[in-house]
Amino acid sequence: MPFHATCLTLLPEAFPGVLGVSIVGNGLRDGLWVLETVDIRSFGIGKHRNVDDTPSGGGAGMVMRADVAAAAIDSVERAGRPLIYLSPRGRPLTQARVRELAKGPGVILLCGRFEGLDERVIEGRGLEEVSLGDFVLAGGEVAALALLEACVRLLPGVAGNAESLTEESFETGLLEHPQYTRPQVWEDREIPAVLTSGDHAKIRAWRRNQAEELTKARRPDLYAASRNAPPVQGTRAKPRD
Amino acid sequence: MPFHATCLTLLPEAFPGVLGVSIVGNGLRDGLWVLETVDIRSFGIGKHRNVDDTPSGGGAGMVMRADVAAAAIDSVERAGRPLIYLSPRGRPLTQARVRELAKGPGVILLCGRFEGLDERVIEGRGLEEVSLGDFVLAGGEVAALALLEACVRLLPGVAGNAESLTEESFETGLLEHPQYTRPQVWEDREIPAVLTSGDHAKIRAWRRNQAEELTKARRPDLYAASRNAPPVQGTRAKPRD
Repeated sequence: MPFHATCLTLLPEAFPGVLGVSIVGNGLRDGLWVLETVDIRSFGIGKHRNVDDTPSGGGAGMVMRADVAAAAIDSVERAGRPLIYLSPRGRPLTQARVRELAKGPGVILLCGRFEGLDERVIEGRGLEEVSLGDFVLAGGEVAALALLEACVRLLPGVAGNAESLTEESFETGLLEHPQYTRPQVWEDREIPAVLTSGDHAKIRAWRRNQAEELTKARRPDLYAASRNAPPVQGTRAKPRD
Repeated sequence: MPFHATCLTLLPEAFPGVLGVSIVGNGLRDGLWVLETVDIRSFGIGKHRNVDDTPSGGGAGMVMRADVAAAAIDSVERAGRPLIYLSPRGRPLTQARVRELAKGPGVILLCGRFEGLDERVIEGRGLEEVSLGDFVLAGGEVAALALLEACVRLLPGVAGNAESLTEESFETGLLEHPQYTRPQVWEDREIPAVLTSGDHAKIRAWRRNQAEELTKARRPDLYAASRNAPPVQGTRAKPRD
């Protein structure tokens, strides 16, 4: 069974969107993963298919109804897949969680709109709340697109070169070292001499040092976490099998 | 002049994508903001319009050339707009930065693909590196979509109700309190009695307490930062003018 993504949304037309292009889109057309949308509106109440109502206790905006969201959720065969609600209140998405999800059977993603979702359905259906970051979107759709893109690029056969996936940011616990390519000189800026030295041990050490310095400067939080992790210097993560 | 977004990309077909739907798409059609794409490929080298080459010093994947990226960047009128490169090596996007960007004339967003971008163009053109979060995407396009959606929903006239923008996650430095709406009882779960009490001071205090407890439990980092910020209890941020 290929990786199976189901998106519950009020905007099915937002999919596949950016997931229809490039390697991720090729993977979709090649059947390396499956994308399905469920229109929450079709579970709405009454003639007007209402999906939301005013917040209890007052306040601006509208809240998605528990009964409507639950009906949409219950219409989907779970098949061992995590049920994720994309929300700025969730735990921030990490590459570790992305790797875990990509190894599994797929995901069910509930995309919110409006002011929020009735808390009772979050509790009642055990939704895992996941946040893209500390900013607010108009809805969960673009967060779902990002989460899926991050997962799908790790699926076997989607990216051309498995090796390149092991050297990038976060896979070593550090931000990635600087990259250079031809031309040798551009606007009086030269490629660092070590990179054209042919000395692979030196190149590896230079890159490691650059990655450490960059992470220390930009992301002291990540750097501190990487110091507590097992040492990875001189080793390389194995491509997933 | 409306908010003006220019996306430099190898995948112009990824835009407007999700930005073409809902309130953000309505805003685009109503001229509340402007979206333009620049195809980096059209600045490629030679007959095949090459935009990338192998990494100096070896390694997997391809690196976007400095000269090609610079030509694409230099083709865009800056007009006082920040020039942002979306990259997992960047500083994580925050709601504070989103608010700042939304108040400005617009943004120029460079979307990477491949293994990375030649470091010299990052330095030479003073690119601000911004990350969506600690995960890796197939390219910068979906990050650009997320950043733009976050900004555009704050533009005057785009969201229906300015007040609702001031009560959501991060705007108070805390995650948002739980929300509830009709029905009063759902699957034996009742709306907390305080919310239907009609006592607005009590409701406000309950919501504040819930937001604090949630933030403390899920995001001790955010909670600690909110304790160092000026007190906001009992006050309300003014809608932007």
